[in-house]
Amino acid sequence: MAEKPSEILAQLLSHMRVPRLMRSRPGAPPGLLADLPEAPPPDVRLLAYNADDHVEQKLETLDELPQYLEKWDVVWLDVEGTGDSRLLEHVGEVFQIPKLALEDVQNPAHRPKLEFFDERMHLILRMAHWREERIELEPVNLFVGPNFVVTFQLADRPTDYFEPIRSRILSGRRQIRTSGADYLAYAIIDRVIDAGLPVLEAVAETYHELEAEVLEPSSRQLITRIHAMNSQLLVLRRAVAPHREILQTLRRHPETVFSEEVIPFLGDCYDHAAHVAELSESYHALGVQILDFHLSISSHRQNEITKVLTIIATIFIPLTFIAGIYGMNFNPQASKWNMPELEWAYGYPFVLVLMFAIGVALVAFFWRKGWIGWGD
Amino acid sequence: MAEKPSEILAQLLSHMRVPRLMRSRPGAPPGLLADLPEAPPPDVRLLAYNADDHVEQKLETLDELPQYLEKWDVVWLDVEGTGDSRLLEHVGEVFQIPKLALEDVQNPAHRPKLEFFDERMHLILRMAHWREERIELEPVNLFVGPNFVVTFQLADRPTDYFEPIRSRILSGRRQIRTSGADYLAYAIIDRVIDAGLPVLEAVAETYHELEAEVLEPSSRQLITRIHAMNSQLLVLRRAVAPHREILQTLRRHPETVFSEEVIPFLGDCYDHAAHVAELSESYHALGVQILDFHLSISSHRQNEITKVLTIIATIFIPLTFIAGIYGMNFNPQASKWNMPELEWAYGYPFVLVLMFAIGVALVAFFWRKGWIGWGD
Amino acid sequence: MAEKPSEILAQLLSHMRVPRLMRSRPGAPPGLLADLPEAPPPDVRLLAYNADDHVEQKLETLDELPQYLEKWDVVWLDVEGTGDSRLLEHVGEVFQIPKLALEDVQNPAHRPKLEFFDERMHLILRMAHWREERIELEPVNLFVGPNFVVTFQLADRPTDYFEPIRSRILSGRRQIRTSGADYLAYAIIDRVIDAGLPVLEAVAETYHELEAEVLEPSSRQLITRIHAMNSQLLVLRRAVAPHREILQTLRRHPETVFSEEVIPFLGDCYDHAAHVAELSESYHALGVQILDFHLSISSHRQNEITKVLTIIATIFIPLTFIAGIYGMNFNPQASKWNMPELEWAYGYPFVLVLMFAIGVALVAFFWRKGWIGWGD
Amino acid sequence: MAEKPSEILAQLLSHMRVPRLMRSRPGAPPGLLADLPEAPPPDVRLLAYNADDHVEQKLETLDELPQYLEKWDVVWLDVEGTGDSRLLEHVGEVFQIPKLALEDVQNPAHRPKLEFFDERMHLILRMAHWREERIELEPVNLFVGPNFVVTFQLADRPTDYFEPIRSRILSGRRQIRTSGADYLAYAIIDRVIDAGLPVLEAVAETYHELEAEVLEPSSRQLITRIHAMNSQLLVLRRAVAPHREILQTLRRHPETVFSEEVIPFLGDCYDHAAHVAELSESYHALGVQILDFHLSISSHRQNEITKVLTIIATIFIPLTFIAGIYGMNFNPQASKWNMPELEWAYGYPFVLVLMFAIGVALVAFFWRKGWIGWGD
Amino acid sequence: MAEKPSEILAQLLSHMRVPRLMRSRPGAPPGLLADLPEAPPPDVRLLAYNADDHVEQKLETLDELPQYLEKWDVVWLDVEGTGDSRLLEHVGEVFQIPKLALEDVQNPAHRPKLEFFDERMHLILRMAHWREERIELEPVNLFVGPNFVVTFQLADRPTDYFEPIRSRILSGRRQIRTSGADYLAYAIIDRVIDAGLPVLEAVAETYHELEAEVLEPSSRQLITRIHAMNSQLLVLRRAVAPHREILQTLRRHPETVFSEEVIPFLGDCYDHAAHVAELSESYHALGVQILDFHLSISSHRQNEITKVLTIIATIFIPLTFIAGIYGMNFNPQASKWNMPELEWAYGYPFVLVLMFAIGVALVAFFWRKGWIGWGD
Repeated sequence: MAEKPSEILAQLLSHMRVPRLMRSRPGAPPGLLADLPEAPPPDVRLLAYNADDHVEQKLETLDELPQYLEKWDVVWLDVEGTGDSRLLEHVGEVFQIPKLALEDVQNPAHRPKLEFFDERMHLILRMAHWREERIELEPVNLFVGPNFVVTFQLADRPTDYFEPIRSRILSGRRQIRTSGADYLAYAIIDRVIDAGLPVLEAVAETYHELEAEVLEPSSRQLITRIHAMNSQLLVLRRAVAPHREILQTLRRHPETVFSEEVIPFLGDCYDHAAHVAELSESYHALGVQILDFHLSISSHRQNEITKVLTIIATIFIPLTFIAGIYGMNFNPQASKWNMPELEWAYGYPFVLVLMFAIGVALVAFFWRKGWIGWGD
Repeated sequence: MAEKPSEILAQLLSHMRVPRLMRSRPGAPPGLLADLPEAPPPDVRLLAYNADDHVEQKLETLDELPQYLEKWDVVWLDVEGTGDSRLLEHVGEVFQIPKLALEDVQNPAHRPKLEFFDERMHLILRMAHWREERIELEPVNLFVGPNFVVTFQLADRPTDYFEPIRSRILSGRRQIRTSGADYLAYAIIDRVIDAGLPVLEAVAETYHELEAEVLEPSSRQLITRIHAMNSQLLVLRRAVAPHREILQTLRRHPETVFSEEVIPFLGDCYDHAAHVAELSESYHALGVQILDFHLSISSHRQNEITKVLTIIATIFIPLTFIAGIYGMNFNPQASKWNMPELEWAYGYPFVLVLMFAIGVALVAFFWRKGWIGWGD
Repeated sequence: MAEKPSEILAQLLSHMRVPRLMRSRPGAPPGLLADLPEAPPPDVRLLAYNADDHVEQKLETLDELPQYLEKWDVVWLDVEGTGDSRLLEHVGEVFQIPKLALEDVQNPAHRPKLEFFDERMHLILRMAHWREERIELEPVNLFVGPNFVVTFQLADRPTDYFEPIRSRILSGRRQIRTSGADYLAYAIIDRVIDAGLPVLEAVAETYHELEAEVLEPSSRQLITRIHAMNSQLLVLRRAVAPHREILQTLRRHPETVFSEEVIPFLGDCYDHAAHVAELSESYHALGVQILDFHLSISSHRQNEITKVLTIIATIFIPLTFIAGIYGMNFNPQASKWNMPELEWAYGYPFVLVLMFAIGVALVAFFWRKGWIGWGD
Repeated sequence: MAEKPSEILAQLLSHMRVPRLMRSRPGAPPGLLADLPEAPPPDVRLLAYNADDHVEQKLETLDELPQYLEKWDVVWLDVEGTGDSRLLEHVGEVFQIPKLALEDVQNPAHRPKLEFFDERMHLILRMAHWREERIELEPVNLFVGPNFVVTFQLADRPTDYFEPIRSRILSGRRQIRTSGADYLAYAIIDRVIDAGLPVLEAVAETYHELEAEVLEPSSRQLITRIHAMNSQLLVLRRAVAPHREILQTLRRHPETVFSEEVIPFLGDCYDHAAHVAELSESYHALGVQILDFHLSISSHRQNEITKVLTIIATIFIPLTFIAGIYGMNFNPQASKWNMPELEWAYGYPFVLVLMFAIGVALVAFFWRKGWIGWGD
Repeated sequence: MAEKPSEILAQLLSHMRVPRLMRSRPGAPPGLLADLPEAPPPDVRLLAYNADDHVEQKLETLDELPQYLEKWDVVWLDVEGTGDSRLLEHVGEVFQIPKLALEDVQNPAHRPKLEFFDERMHLILRMAHWREERIELEPVNLFVGPNFVVTFQLADRPTDYFEPIRSRILSGRRQIRTSGADYLAYAIIDRVIDAGLPVLEAVAETYHELEAEVLEPSSRQLITRIHAMNSQLLVLRRAVAPHREILQTLRRHPETVFSEEVIPFLGDCYDHAAHVAELSESYHALGVQILDFHLSISSHRQNEITKVLTIIATIFIPLTFIAGIYGMNFNPQASKWNMPELEWAYGYPFVLVLMFAIGVALVAFFWRKGWIGWGD
């Protein structure tokens, strides 16, 4: 929270980076998968279930995957980490996913996307986190087929976002266990979209913290924080806006992937996506307004200072000039024209009265002009 | 009206809160209804009628509801308070409302929405109040079926907004009594949409109050109030904008819910919704313009102050410098080069004339530049 | 033209009032016509004609209307003043106009609208006047049937806008006398839309008057006038924008109301409506630009003042400091370290030269920095 | 180029005038042609040709026109000046052009428009000139029929814009001579649209001239010129934007007017129209950015001045105060408390050192705050 | 990087030039190819291949081209430099490209465009480079037919952008060698679009360099650089925006040019084009925000300076006035009213205390008003 302005700026810029992986690409053939040597080895979790039973397992190799696919009603393969090209290729072979789609999995900044290829669906969503006072965005890739769901997430994520879904499956709650892979896909989509809500709540709380400060004198820190929040909301808004359209498409043209029973749930998902998108927009508009408001208040304060101080200065400048005149050293003895006032019996009181009168006249003038007033 | 700026800001932020109920959701199964222990017990009012007779009753339990549905032409169940999950479930069973829709009822910030499921319609509208100098927004849920209307409102509402409709029914006015549930639904929709008009009137009156102040010197209070009003109108505008589209859809595709006779009334409703939406936009534009205007006037006033005061200061600075020169104590006795003016017979009058001439010259210069003028 | 700023603001707000009549409505049954006791009695003018003959008459009662309808090819009933509910009802009965439409007639701020009900058309347009240096907007309601046109206007209108049409009919010019009610309707629509042109011309003349002032020092009066003009154009723009779409619809789907021969004239009307709408937009953009320009010029002037004056002040401040030093009263007799300069033979000339040198150096510095220059 | 600001403003406003001719219209019957007595007599040029031969002639009367139409493959009638109603009527009769269309010809500010009436096309485009440092816009009316083209231009045009087309015809270049009236119409449309390119080039050159000045101190002249350029580009952008849509329509629905061979050329025209429209937009955006940039630079310069000067002033103010103290005339003889410093042996050097120390301390403070620095 | 502001401005303007070639056009016949004498002779490279073999060659003359077309599966003719009209005409004849399309090739600022003529496609894209700290844009023209691809690039390009594609062909990688001309066209389109990514990366790095400076005092250099970057991104954004739509069209309506197998790759291209377009927009928005942020921070700093300095000045002004009073030379001997304080025993200490008290009071007043504070 007390980060330095330059860090906040750096963080903003980081949201907008051109993804590293694309860097090597211009001119390269399509569908080329890359090995990221510095990436941690991916973490592959298998969860297979039917209405009666289930199995959960960390997989080291994908060799037994076909057997799982045969035996269980629904197989969910959750891969964390996308830096291992051989693993990706193996997944592609098992689930018949084209290489062009797998290439997208490796792009850490891919835009939301929906694509169908025979009986399979590829969906990319953008999931929002709130980590260390910032909004982070990461892509989640979903491949859905007749009896499987494959999800790809980045490796370095703070918490296990799919845990609630897993526990719903493991605890044997009926609907998810008796429904097919499409219901599981819906549950995951729902989770990814709803992840935006705690982020927006955190934003709201940040605004509440800013509340008191906004009326205080302007500080670099405050200006930087509001700007940083606005920029992040701008990025968030652009990231989640396509979800709305994607879910609308999904609900209207579910192709062969989603069954009749799951479509109403997609409608619910659409509502949530629209809600998150609209809240992002509203919060961004609010942030812009808070900044405007703060700048208005600051400028008002600045004007007040300038006004009061200038008025004080102006009143005393003519008075100081008069004092200056009678501080001159013209020799009264040289002639009777030289500063005879200095020798007058009431010269000094007269000058004091004159100064007082001028001061009062100036104050009265400013008063009539409405430039000074009681209170406020 | 004399609220503190920080309160106004807090109130703005409150319009934009992420609804509490959603907080518990990410990852939870869909259609889960929540019990809100702190909520007051819901208030359930039944009004059943046909052309000849009617009955109005507060219900403690919904057990007898099916009998009412059988006996009367139209049954209107009005529930205030949505925190009791068992009541909601019971309503859902009696009227065959899916759980996903009931979940929406519990969301205090749901966006306007229209959905049909066989012969039933679910409509969410946003009703605007003017309470304690602010615009408040609350959702109203409507379920309409062949012979019933169920409405859900939040519990803590200041006045009974549906009272005029009830009294029209009770007083036996013909059209509403002889028409079906669709006409009642229209009357309720019309009421909810028209609730925006007194709010906009209150906004207009607030603007009229601001009128005189806008030309006065800027105050934090005023800036804050205009900003607060603009933010609220922004929120209002976004909240009511979807009504237009929803009513357009309703009027063009009334499905089986609305009969031929009621559709022209929906057209009228559409006109009102468009009117409220356009007025919200216009008032927001006006608010922005008032703020701009106030800032222009304030900046003009500030420039005037700076200009006049700086001119006064500038005229006296050279004069004070001259007085300073002749206030120096160089010893005229030491040489004839040391301030011989002090010993001149007409030294003092000469200096006074010089000062006067310089002052006049500066004023003339400023005059010719157009920086000082008569009047204004 | 010399109105006070607060009056201008009041007038702006008056454009945006929530119509009084709607005030009594929320919750009332639809189609309820109101009596406005303070309204003057409506003025009903009948003009009936065929190719050969015509009759013009002020009607006190509508009883004989059916006979006119039978006898004449075209009957035009022009009602000024909408506050008499019985009259409205009677008109509704004679011409078979639904109550919902008549209710719209009583709404003094209704948005433009087009509706058809069997063989009849209801059209609401917004007519612009230029009265007392302001843009006024009022609705004109048109009901057109096979052989009649009914128009409703507000009562307190400055001039008779339909006079040219009447005189074309009375003077027996062929086309309007031999054409049907649809041609009359076209003539009225054309008149209402073209009424915007003199208003825009008056705006242009106001801009021409402002021309010279825009380059003068900023005054509250001027800022207020430009803002007021911009606000009015904003309102005008929003009011007339829907005409374009309505006329496009009318021309493409004339239903049974307009005959083949009249449709090209509607195309001409569309052109005019588009022209008025585009001019309103352009004038609004021009007004915004004039304000921007005035503010740029004002700010430039303010900077000039500040710059020149600050430079003068700054040059004299160090000089005055030096004069101050030699005005100190340290006693040279007390030691040889105490202001020996005062006793030097050339002390005074030296100090004068020093001051001159410093002044020249500062001017040279400012010059080199480009802060002062010749001319401009 | 050295025009006075008020002239520039006047010129801006002139672009936006409500056309004079429309002034007389509200309420008048449609299709009324006006005589403009002050207009010069129109200049009518006939050019008729087929693949083998051609004839070019100034016509005084249109009586022989039907014979030309019979004899030649293509007849091009080019009328400069639209103020003679009889001539217009005669043209209308010969080419069977409806009066409503001819009325549009007389409107000097008509918006671009495309209309078809059996086998004839009426097209209005807006042609841009660069005359005396300004963008001028004038309408060009085209009527195209099976074997004729009629063009109307305003009378007071600087150069003959259609000269290149005429010389292509006269020089016997094949394509234009062997093609029909539609190809000639294309050539004219192309010419009118391409007329925007030299204008935009002139704008670009004006920007290049402004280049150096933009970094100089702000002058009223410069601000006025940039504003004027931006306003003109705004007007140009709005004027030429509809060309794009019109040419798209023409190319997709050429009706019977354009033959298959000419349609690809219309596609080329569309490209040019889009190019001109996009350049106008880009130049307007660039103009806005140049203004912004100039204002940023000016404000930066103003801040620099204020900063340096205020710092100088502030350093000397406390020093002058100290000098003032020791300029006071308290009598050291009256008591030992009265200004004993004046009698000290090192009083004066001490005060000088004190002043120097304070000055250095203030400079150091400003330095540490980063308010003063080397360079820049 | 250390370029002068005026150079940056010149470079901005250069992006927006009206292309020279169009200058000669208004009124000229369509399809006229121009010779650019100052242009270097074009560089023509032929690359022909089939699955088994390939040939690469620089062509001096196009005479043998038909033989290549007959013999090889795919012929790629890459022409750098478009200033030789005879070469263009020859290419047009061999590949049956209409002259209107060849004319577009010569336009160095043509907008992106897609056109089909029987079995041939003409595509114009805009390729972005990063050269000498600037974004440069140049058109790439593609003509694709059943077994050929012709590309036209400008002559003065820094690197060979198509090198990676050539080396993929030469190295015998399978897909590109076994696929047809459509796959080659895809590879080229992909390359052109992806060329935007390194440019955006360079922009991001420039922003990172600016990062530290943005919080520093404002300099002309910095303001100019941010403005320049924003203008360039504006131009880039407009240039690449149409790519998205063009690729969408291409993918949905591939006509006969693209085979079924290549269409998914076009979908991938579309993703990249959308990504580049969205990044351009986001970067432009970020640039605007950085400028805003810098201006907020600068204005905050300026306010701080003004505030502190004005406060110091104001405190000393009344004190200097008091010192001035007691510097007056009224003769205490003339009367007991003349400055008796000067003779008081404690006159001097009293005045010092008075001054101190006034100073403390002013500081306290400013403190209470919140205008001065600890820290920040």
